[in-house]
Amino acid sequence: MQSQHIVNAYDQELRKLHSYIAEMGGQAEQQLREAMQAIVTRDSDLAGKVVREDGLLDELERKVEAQTIRLLALRQPVACDLREVITALKAASNLERIGDFAANVAKRSLALQQMPEIGLTRSLGPLGQTAGEMLNAVVQAYLDDDVDGALRVRDRDEDLDRAYTALFRELLTYMMETPQRITACTHLLFAAKNLERIGDHATNIAEAVCFRIRGSLPEEERQKGDETSFAVVSPGILGDGPTR
Amino acid sequence: MQSQHIVNAYDQELRKLHSYIAEMGGQAEQQLREAMQAIVTRDSDLAGKVVREDGLLDELERKVEAQTIRLLALRQPVACDLREVITALKAASNLERIGDFAANVAKRSLALQQMPEIGLTRSLGPLGQTAGEMLNAVVQAYLDDDVDGALRVRDRDEDLDRAYTALFRELLTYMMETPQRITACTHLLFAAKNLERIGDHATNIAEAVCFRIRGSLPEEERQKGDETSFAVVSPGILGDGPTR
Repeated sequence: MQSQHIVNAYDQELRKLHSYIAEMGGQAEQQLREAMQAIVTRDSDLAGKVVREDGLLDELERKVEAQTIRLLALRQPVACDLREVITALKAASNLERIGDFAANVAKRSLALQQMPEIGLTRSLGPLGQTAGEMLNAVVQAYLDDDVDGALRVRDRDEDLDRAYTALFRELLTYMMETPQRITACTHLLFAAKNLERIGDHATNIAEAVCFRIRGSLPEEERQKGDETSFAVVSPGILGDGPTR
Repeated sequence: MQSQHIVNAYDQELRKLHSYIAEMGGQAEQQLREAMQAIVTRDSDLAGKVVREDGLLDELERKVEAQTIRLLALRQPVACDLREVITALKAASNLERIGDFAANVAKRSLALQQMPEIGLTRSLGPLGQTAGEMLNAVVQAYLDDDVDGALRVRDRDEDLDRAYTALFRELLTYMMETPQRITACTHLLFAAKNLERIGDHATNIAEAVCFRIRGSLPEEERQKGDETSFAVVSPGILGDGPTR
């Protein structure tokens, strides 16, 4: 009877932990969606809302930490429970960072609205879309104990990295052709980098889900598609320049 | 006797955990120092070494996770032990990210070496210096249970943010004046951003140290000196342009 009681209390606390992660995932998704809308449609009210609401994820992260402490206090920890806790803490930390990146996109959209519009801003859309889908899928995989779903998210990160690399090169070429747009393009570069980083954090969560369920990290080394750190782009180096 | 034995085993495991964090701190510091030397002196061998050795911190982070699991299995967790574990995990995760940022600086130095040298590269030096000092101090605060030391690291982050903002503006102005150096300047922008982010991660560790010792996060909201997300820099907007 005593044991039954303890297990029930534990399960209840575990469900609460999962509901916090679900809430954080939903909040991070919303911030990303609104930040993307703000930057693409130059909506300063929406951008302001995203910046103001960023603290919500910090608060939720603190709740997850407090909850993991309560949860473990309810029973002697064994390897699997500790993996549960470590994974929850990792997921919360990564979701909080994703919120920061979304808020930073919103901040940059406010700066961009003070400058003439640049067509390339719309090219952020597909990156934001992919990042948002990865985020949604990885939170679902977390909640469903779905290793295959988590591994699919991890695989998609390469696509996001490649899309980022392509946009990075386009932006650099555009900056060389249009130096008076350098400030705006720099904000777009950092906004694109933020979206690429959101993919990295979704991938971190995916790997943590695998760790929780299998007890080990995915073995194969992941292909990295982002080669921009090594990029050398010179005026005229790209045979067919963009026609903007 | 049994209890004595358990406490001793626990203390031993705790010391091992601390020694891993100390090792990670030392490794991250070395990577940062070498990456800075590589980018400022255009040393491709050293840059290659930093990139190759980045995996060491990933391995150490995994050891910290395994060690926290062993450590908690040794005794019924109470709030303080769990804070110890959470703090170790946070510190390890932040140190691993700091290593990533140092490796990214090294990667960018390899790209920069394929382009004509830019004088502003040397302006990264003071940022790297401040970031390195913060990193050293926060690992020391972690190992010494030193709240005041941790709070001093947190306060220094504002200086680093301001130095980053100043360099960001200088780089943008230089890009406008010298569009043929845009690619190089973009790498310098991201390298500077990496150093600014290292300061953020050192600050995260500082806050985790406060949380471990006091059981709560520092209360006062931290001043943020990095305003670059909102920056609007136009040609001629800065009265006295840099004279490079």
